[in-house]
Order: sequence, then C-alpha cells, then structure tokens
Amino acid sequence: MKSLTVDLGSRSYPIYIGPGLIDRRDLLTPHITGKQVLVVTNETVAPLYLDRLLALLNGYQVATVVLPDGEQFKTLETLDAIFTQLLTSRFDRGVTLIALGGGVVGDMTGFAAASYQRGVAFIQVPTTLLSQVDSSVGGKTGVNHRLGKNMIGAFHQPQLVLADTDTLRTLEPRQLSAGVAEVIKYGLINDPEFFVWLEQNMHALMALDGDALAYAIGRSCADKAAIVASDERESGQRALLNLGHTFGHAIETGMGYGEWLHGEAVGTGMLLAAEVSARMGWMGTNEVERIRDLLARAKLPLKAPADMSGARFLDLMAVDKKVHAGKLRFVLMRGIGQSFITGEVAPEQIAAAIDAHHEVG
Amino acid sequence: MKSLTVDLGSRSYPIYIGPGLIDRRDLLTPHITGKQVLVVTNETVAPLYLDRLLALLNGYQVATVVLPDGEQFKTLETLDAIFTQLLTSRFDRGVTLIALGGGVVGDMTGFAAASYQRGVAFIQVPTTLLSQVDSSVGGKTGVNHRLGKNMIGAFHQPQLVLADTDTLRTLEPRQLSAGVAEVIKYGLINDPEFFVWLEQNMHALMALDGDALAYAIGRSCADKAAIVASDERESGQRALLNLGHTFGHAIETGMGYGEWLHGEAVGTGMLLAAEVSARMGWMGTNEVERIRDLLARAKLPLKAPADMSGARFLDLMAVDKKVHAGKLRFVLMRGIGQSFITGEVAPEQIAAAIDAHHEVG
Repeated sequence: MKSLTVDLGSRSYPIYIGPGLIDRRDLLTPHITGKQVLVVTNETVAPLYLDRLLALLNGYQVATVVLPDGEQFKTLETLDAIFTQLLTSRFDRGVTLIALGGGVVGDMTGFAAASYQRGVAFIQVPTTLLSQVDSSVGGKTGVNHRLGKNMIGAFHQPQLVLADTDTLRTLEPRQLSAGVAEVIKYGLINDPEFFVWLEQNMHALMALDGDALAYAIGRSCADKAAIVASDERESGQRALLNLGHTFGHAIETGMGYGEWLHGEAVGTGMLLAAEVSARMGWMGTNEVERIRDLLARAKLPLKAPADMSGARFLDLMAVDKKVHAGKLRFVLMRGIGQSFITGEVAPEQIAAAIDAHHEVG
Repeated sequence: MKSLTVDLGSRSYPIYIGPGLIDRRDLLTPHITGKQVLVVTNETVAPLYLDRLLALLNGYQVATVVLPDGEQFKTLETLDAIFTQLLTSRFDRGVTLIALGGGVVGDMTGFAAASYQRGVAFIQVPTTLLSQVDSSVGGKTGVNHRLGKNMIGAFHQPQLVLADTDTLRTLEPRQLSAGVAEVIKYGLINDPEFFVWLEQNMHALMALDGDALAYAIGRSCADKAAIVASDERESGQRALLNLGHTFGHAIETGMGYGEWLHGEAVGTGMLLAAEVSARMGWMGTNEVERIRDLLARAKLPLKAPADMSGARFLDLMAVDKKVHAGKLRFVLMRGIGQSFITGEVAPEQIAAAIDAHHEVG
C-alpha cells in the first residue's frame, strides 16, 4: 500500500492507494467523525462494492443513497435527493458522508457535505481511475448547470481518500482510458520524467498491472497534491491543472453531458492545447506527435467532434471559469512538462487551430 | 452615519448604518471587485429601491434578478434562477453579487455567491430591520429544504454591508416587529444594559425614530459581530445567537414557511426559552414577565400556534442543526443577558413547558 498526505494545514488528509483497501476497516473508521454515516453511490457501483463497504460500518447508524449513473445527473436536483436522505435519516452536523464511486459521485457527495448544515465531514472511496488520480485530490466539489459544467460548487476537503486499485478491474475500457487521460495530464503539466515513464509503461497500465497502476496513481496524486498545496483556492498555479479542460468542457457541454466522458474530452482537449501551442510556435510538432501517440495507445479519441466548429468552441468557452475580466485564459505548453497560463492568444487563433485540427486530426 | 468592522482577519468587512446610504456611490463601489455586477432583489423591494441602486452602478456591466417575495421561495429552485442569470450574462469569477432586500434575499444571494464558480464576492444592502441587525452579520447563507429550515448553505462573508435606515420607513408593521424581536435577542443573550435601553426606548423604536433605530441597529450588529469574531464557524459560543431559534424554526417549519415571519417565530421562541428556563428554576418569573412585556410592546405574537403541541415541537426540533449526537441542545437563560447552552434538559420537560405555555400563554 502507498500512502501520501495532501498538505493543507488543518485541512490536511491522507490518501491510501493499493489493492483490497475497500475491506480495510482499520483504515476507514478512524476518519469517521461521529456515529452517523451516509454512503452515496450509484446504480453501477452499488451491486459491485456497496455491501463490502457497508460490512465495515457495523456499529454505525448508516443510510445509503443510490444515484443514477452519469454526468447528466450531476445536478442540483440530484443533490436534493442526497439532502432529503440526510434529513429523513435525521442526521446532524456530526454525520460523515462517504462517496463510493467515480468523479460524479465524489463531486456531488463532496458538495452535499460542503452544504449540508453549512458543512459536514466526508470521505472519498473512488472506484474509477479518473477519480483516484484527479477528483480525490484538491477539494473541488460541485454540480453542473445546463449552461455550464461545474459552475456551482465549493472547495471542501475530505477527511480521507481510500483508493482501492482492485476496483479498477471492473471498469469499462472507455472509463479506464478516460482515467489514463488525466494521468497523462500530470506528465504534460510539469513532470516530463513521468511522461517518459508513461511512454514506456502504457501497455502495463492498460493491462491493469497492479504495480504500474499503483505507481501511476501515486505519482499523479503527488503531482496534483503539490500544486494544490501551493494554491488551494486556485488564485494562481493551480489553474495549470486545467490543462485540456477549457477545450474539454466545451466538448462536454456542446455534446451534452454524458456523451463524452470527462477524461475523453480532456484527452482531446490536451491535444488541442498542444496544437494551439505548436501553431503559436511555442511547442515542436514532434512533441505534439508524441502526445497524440500516447493518447492513441490509451485508446482515447483524437479528434474534436466533427460538428463542433472553432466558433462553437469559443462560444462555449466564453462561460468557462477560466475567464477573467472577459478575457479567455488557456493552459498551453512550451514543451512536454512545461505548461503555462496565458491570456495572450487571440480567439481567432484558437478557432483556427480547432478548425485546422478538424481537417487534419 | 455609524460604521463598524466585523473582525475576521482577511475576511473582515465594514458595516455602514444610517439614513440615505442607498444613494452613496462612494461607499458602495470601492467594494465591487470587478466590472460585473448582479443585483438580486425581490418583487416587493424592486419597485421601491432598485432604480436608485442601479443609478450608482453606471459604468458597470449590470444584470438583475427579481425573485418572488417570501420565505417559501428560499429554495434550491430559486437559487437556480440566480445561477441561470449569472451564466446567461456570462459573468465570471470576478463578478460581485449585491443583495438588495431582506433576510431571504440576503441568504440566497450569499449562498449563490458562495457556490457560483466555487465562490465570488457579494455585498449586502439589507432593507428590513431583521436583515440589518441579523443576517447581514456573520456570513451565514443558505436555503431551506422542505424537511428543515436553513439546512443547505455555506459560511460566506460579504465585502460590505450597507444598512440604509430610511428603507425601514416602507416596511410593513409586521416586518418591523419581526426585526425588533432579533434586536431584543441581543439584550437577552449577553447585553442586559441594552435590554434596559430597549425597555426605555421601545416606543421610539416602533415609531421609527432615526436616532433610536441607528443606535439599536449599531448595538445589535456590534453585539453579534463580537460573538461571530470569537467563533466564526459556530463551534462554541456562536450558538448563543440561536436563542429562540430552535423553538422558532419548529414554528416556521410546522406552520409552513411564510406563515409566520422568521422574527415573529424567534420572538415566541425566546419566550418559550424563558418559560423553560423558569420551569427549570434558572430564571425568575418576574424576568419572564419583563420579556413578555417587551415583546408585547413590539407587537409580537406571544403564544405558540394553537395546533402545535409540545410533542410536535420535539418532532420538528429533532432535525434542527443544534442537535449534536442525537441530543437536543438549547440556548436557555439564567437571567436577562445571561444565556447559556445546555443539553441537560429532558425532551419531556421541554414538551411540558410548551404545553403549559399553550394553556397559560
């Protein structure tokens, strides 16, 4: 088992990564603050892991919410169902929420915990690669609005993240690929050595080799934790974590939530960011090709949706959270592992890069 | 004009109190963080003050949301309307929300600001006595759930509170009385000298005497600010501010939001707290009578709703946020200005006090 700590002063918390952790009562219960526990999961994950988790909670007052599965349900309406269960169970401020599932379950459970009685404790038990490497670190929680993704939410840190790598064996191949996209992101942001490791070990990762998984998840979490610790509220460098996300959110919103997986959209978004970087003369085309090759080996989509023009992207990106004072800001690259934030790219150049990518991608 | 500062470190903010402040651009605009402003108000307040506020915002990019008026609209659904306007206006993280109205508008606008893009700035322009003395200090924001009041929310501090005492001249008498209930609360919590001042000046206050209003609002805000500064997240002494609220919330929930005004319910709740305190032998009956007399002079209701039994109160109070580990905690009094928190009163004693009050009240 690997373990690391996200260092946020009084809000610091541990992440445990390894096989079989979902059965480890000794790891879980020290982080439950009271006697009341609400487990939030979805209809896909519940049949696989809910009973095993509940078996650890003997002696607690436990209630369960099983949500429908999919990004399209990450809404205020679904959130209300969690509040209804909390209130029907008469759970008070001492309750601990446990998110058992992927990023959608984690984001919603975290926001429910942030908002219920103005803030209660929560624990993440992520069961997808994407949520293990990404949404479990950093405390971003929230729901979508039909006019924009993740527009409603809070920063709220968990007490504990328990990432059982065995749960990845039941993932659909598309979900695995989507998670690998976020893993690749950490190499691109500021860890070129990890990018090379991924080029050398992508086969093992896609084959769910236990050691490769644990290494990739641990390194991704450590890379992310270092960035988050330096900028918890995203006033500066934390925005680097949005590499690929401005383009990716546009794809998700434009295609309708649930059509593209978040990680798939981010993968294509990173390639678009690389394309723009190359067109600006900041990145070599050979590096764009290395990125494209790695994404291809992770079985990720390599083209923006055919019916989304550059102009449509710009329109959707105008409501993105990365907008400051009306100016679009992008995370681009000066090379693999050398990302930076810029507001100096004209919208027309972005649109042209996307349109070019449609033709050549 | 009076001014005071709520001292919360980096989240400190000023409160200005006095006549004509709603026309003071010099007080307002230094606290607007960017160029985008969303004004949130309701259909009662909008015809009275919206144009005057908008006249100060020349040069800003301004949008407006006019909500229906009433506690029954303090819901996630109404909140969604605020988010829709923010997104339709394409407002980014630099937006400032301005709450123009009473406590409901302030609570919802504050929670929208806490949640939009995980947190943006907001300013309170409270136009009721209750919101000027209570909800504008302390950063509590949120909405109701049909199963419990203020169950969904966040702590989020405003940049500024601008309390124009002239706006109280358009208040309905019931709304004025409801605000006076919260003013009396500060005397009861820990300021017996202020309680005596209120006994001597209630007539001036109810007649909207400008000096009396400014004094009472300023002293209430200062009393509250001192408590909040010592315990921002309500881990201890801040709970004293809930004097009368555990009973009051039960009345509001039991009768249906909007039937009793919040301040009316709190007024009766304080009297019930005094009754329980007297029955426990902690408070003299002469002090209960002084409280009852002062509430009567403020034209507040003095009886719990006839169809709400002690058992019904207990049932509703069981979901209150003041519950800890399944145990009901109450703010009671050892005398006027000597409130304290206790979990040592048996539910049966509470129910008996309420039932007795029905008979004698």
